Amino acid sequence: MERLPGFRDFYPEPLPSRDAGWSADVRHYIFDTWRSVARRYGFREYDGPPLEPLELYTTKSGDELVGQMFNFTDKGEREVALRPEMTPTLARMVAAHARNYKKPIKWFAIPQLFRYERPSKGRFREHFQFNADIFGETDPAADAELIALLIDSLRALKLTAADFVIRLSSRNAWHEFFERGMRGAEHGTEQEYEFYQIIDKLEREEPAQSDSKLKALGFSLDAVNEFIAAAKPTAELDVILNNLAARGLGEFVKIDYNVIRGLAYYTGAVFEAFDKKGEFRAIAGGGRYDNLVKIISGGKVELPGLGFGMGDVVLTELLNARGLLPALNTRLDAFCLIEDEDLRLASLKLVQDLRESGLTADYSFVPSRPEKQFKRALELNAAFIVKLERTSNGEFALKVKNLKTREERVVDTARVAAFLLADK
Amino acid sequence: MERLPGFRDFYPEPLPSRDAGWSADVRHYIFDTWRSVARRYGFREYDGPPLEPLELYTTKSGDELVGQMFNFTDKGEREVALRPEMTPTLARMVAAHARNYKKPIKWFAIPQLFRYERPSKGRFREHFQFNADIFGETDPAADAELIALLIDSLRALKLTAADFVIRLSSRNAWHEFFERGMRGAEHGTEQEYEFYQIIDKLEREEPAQSDSKLKALGFSLDAVNEFIAAAKPTAELDVILNNLAARGLGEFVKIDYNVIRGLAYYTGAVFEAFDKKGEFRAIAGGGRYDNLVKIISGGKVELPGLGFGMGDVVLTELLNARGLLPALNTRLDAFCLIEDEDLRLASLKLVQDLRESGLTADYSFVPSRPEKQFKRALELNAAFIVKLERTSNGEFALKVKNLKTREERVVDTARVAAFLLADK
Repeated sequence: MERLPGFRDFYPEPLPSRDAGWSADVRHYIFDTWRSVARRYGFREYDGPPLEPLELYTTKSGDELVGQMFNFTDKGEREVALRPEMTPTLARMVAAHARNYKKPIKWFAIPQLFRYERPSKGRFREHFQFNADIFGETDPAADAELIALLIDSLRALKLTAADFVIRLSSRNAWHEFFERGMRGAEHGTEQEYEFYQIIDKLEREEPAQSDSKLKALGFSLDAVNEFIAAAKPTAELDVILNNLAARGLGEFVKIDYNVIRGLAYYTGAVFEAFDKKGEFRAIAGGGRYDNLVKIISGGKVELPGLGFGMGDVVLTELLNARGLLPALNTRLDAFCLIEDEDLRLASLKLVQDLRESGLTADYSFVPSRPEKQFKRALELNAAFIVKLERTSNGEFALKVKNLKTREERVVDTARVAAFLLADK
Repeated sequence: MERLPGFRDFYPEPLPSRDAGWSADVRHYIFDTWRSVARRYGFREYDGPPLEPLELYTTKSGDELVGQMFNFTDKGEREVALRPEMTPTLARMVAAHARNYKKPIKWFAIPQLFRYERPSKGRFREHFQFNADIFGETDPAADAELIALLIDSLRALKLTAADFVIRLSSRNAWHEFFERGMRGAEHGTEQEYEFYQIIDKLEREEPAQSDSKLKALGFSLDAVNEFIAAAKPTAELDVILNNLAARGLGEFVKIDYNVIRGLAYYTGAVFEAFDKKGEFRAIAGGGRYDNLVKIISGGKVELPGLGFGMGDVVLTELLNARGLLPALNTRLDAFCLIEDEDLRLASLKLVQDLRESGLTADYSFVPSRPEKQFKRALELNAAFIVKLERTSNGEFALKVKNLKTREERVVDTARVAAFLLADK
């Protein structure tokens, strides 16, 4: 029986074979890093349901996301979708209890997200995404804090300014450009969003095609390219740049108006993280969405917000390509070797005591030759072998062997955990 | 907009209100405990897709599970299901790479599982489940190891022998009973499984109803009750009991043939963990399934297996009822108070330095009165307040205030992280 196309299995290290799929240990290393950096920044963890009403996404996110939704009708005739992104769930959760939280709210989550599109290299039907968001602060200082968190999350994974850059842009800059171009002519928000969609595709589309689309809206590719090339920061972007520079993070960010983000709900600064060699898709992306909570809550709650998402797939590929994934094999503190089967029950008690002391301990379930047990201890990357022996006076002696130094010594049973912990 | 019925939101502590749902911090505390005990036992973490082909479950699990499956047809016309349990996924994964792993294989996971049934108190359409499994060992020593892990997972959450007990039973014992009752009469496995289903429901059904169902198969409730009352351990159960007693865990387990488990695939020892007051559903359950890998792999791989699952819902309710959930409020190492706005950028650098040292640090995004910043520091449960001041000679002085002792002192900026870490 096969797993579904576009889904991943996560195996423990060492991976059984090259095609065995993804490493559960690498995933854990990345999740742990995300978590610890978010906590250092004072972000708190939340989570929501992986399945949500379809309408949570249909009106807010823009066309791109809706077209590749993993949606279906449930047994209760509800239109539902496996969540394609976390922000609408978060906006719903925050709106439901906004009054009970002191602002600003700084939250993060690591949800699994889903989309139904043709799986391709590095593009699955599910991925995990580190989401960090701030609510209740309109000042660009919050945007800077969020971008600093993004930068430090990548740095904590040992990526440097030589590896990645944050391309910073603003919907406000593009809004002003759009309004100037309209010269007061009447227009709806659909037209403006259509314009944003063209900008969003600039780097992926033929110039002639972009130009003709732009001309239909009364713009030209030349004017757009000129605006992008000038890269003149808006007042808000200036604040963000100065704030990041003060933290010593200035080298990680540059103004780049090619970035505009595909989702409809962004309202202010937007940004994307890219590998500097340009070998991969965007590592992360986000921005400000000051109206989303209001939309999701049906106008009941007004709360400015901003956030970013960073997926696990591109990131893992990038870390792998740069040789930055640490060795994550098993490590066992103690393997209990049982030579004398009469001492099996006493050995079980020893293993139990070691585990209760917080040590990782293992042993052979069934009688087996000492050499085989020794081999197993090496396979499990044990630091020590512990072994009970019967002494001439009928008591136990406990021998402890350091597998690195090969040094062996007798240790008091009552002190063995402390002895091993000291070496840990 | 509301979330779907039967799904949960997880909020950070402190919860905004009593009806705000579940605590993400309690969930994290439980997951962390599960993880650390499993690792001490030498179990490695894996994960699989939350969505699987429906047929992975339809033939292997028995009627109960299939009836409440969260299944649908995807956009590619595949019959799929949100995983109702983890074992079939695990069996599929292990079967695919069984040759590449040294045995025994000891793995764990904490998947979210789904079922489509009427939500009720303490019964949702999703829950998280700690799954631990062992492959490649038929000896009951492996069963004992698994049950020891289950016991120690509950003990690590501060539950004691006064709170819970493992009711240990065996499909082998029931198989022998069934065969004796059949006295050599011809019968299929369906009939035997039907018998098991009656036993499984004994404690929930009217005795007269159970008796009449048993009679239809040629058995009687009296004979069944007598067998249960005798509680005579099979040879395998004796080994398990002695093994657990040797570890000092004997008081946590008792033979109880009322337990037989609903799923069709169990083949040997089966067990369930219950709270001793009998106020809750089973906390955990599991057993041996020596044929499942063979069935899932279409006969290609033979590998004995055993495992248990422990859900988060009953467990959280039990811990809550016994007053065993720890306080999990925010704790901040340092709140940076900015009194002089000229020092904001320097303060940002200070916050950055603290965070880079691994400390949790926060500050106010925008200018605000010192009293208000102080109040915020208290809300965030900060251990220290750090504050830059301009000295008469134009340099900075850094003041550090311990919010518990209210002691304040001047600390060298280069040493502040070490100073705070020493107190951590």
